Amino acid sequence: MADCIFCRIIAGELPCAKVYENERVISFLDVNPINAGHTLVLPKRHYATLFEISEEDLHACTAASQKIATAVYKATKASGLNFFQNNYRSAGQRVDHVHFHLIPRFHQDNFWIPWPGKPYPQGGLGKALKEIKAEL
Amino acid sequence: MADCIFCRIIAGELPCAKVYENERVISFLDVNPINAGHTLVLPKRHYATLFEISEEDLHACTAASQKIATAVYKATKASGLNFFQNNYRSAGQRVDHVHFHLIPRFHQDNFWIPWPGKPYPQGGLGKALKEIKAEL
Repeated sequence: MADCIFCRIIAGELPCAKVYENERVISFLDVNPINAGHTLVLPKRHYATLFEISEEDLHACTAASQKIATAVYKATKASGLNFFQNNYRSAGQRVDHVHFHLIPRFHQDNFWIPWPGKPYPQGGLGKALKEIKAEL
Repeated sequence: MADCIFCRIIAGELPCAKVYENERVISFLDVNPINAGHTLVLPKRHYATLFEISEEDLHACTAASQKIATAVYKATKASGLNFFQNNYRSAGQRVDHVHFHLIPRFHQDNFWIPWPGKPYPQGGLGKALKEIKAEL
């Protein structure tokens, strides 16, 4: 897509710090990393989100992500790694071309994620389960 | 593994709110959700992290995650969704059986993720790229 910054990188119209490439996938460094070595993995074909990507491209991306995650983890001497993928603005997506973040993590680094998980109110779990299963 | 809470759920020794199951994968509600409908997807076989999971089980998990993510998104009437997978304590992993989070999100909900991305210092991007490529 002409107005997609990632499609322009894939087309060679914009530069990137390329980590890896194959027929279906490209991977490059995030230029505004959470930590040094923060890498993006994405399909060459344009899809907006996880909801649209084809199974073949999804598998190509996750297989490449696993391989690259291992390299990122070793190279950065990290003690943890997040594999994150955000869909739509409410979830933090900023570029509308599906992409997977590989974020090397260190003990008590600056990427503290509040995790406000709490138990369901009475009846809430059964209701959520029923509603999701109805859509499957 | 006898001391793994997810293996005990898979073995039927502990209950879960099961969303989906196939030969390789099980999916159930997180009992301490970020938002109602927060769902976990994991391989039935025990692997600690993304670094160890087999390609077949990884693909089975991501294909199931895509399908279930669509159902979670529709059922919860969310406006976004995070597909997250954490490796090791530094990255927020709490149960040492690889699992994928599907987190329905809403505009300005309570799961604000600080995203402290910032440009590399001079020379930092090239150094990170070189070190990662050396491990690939």
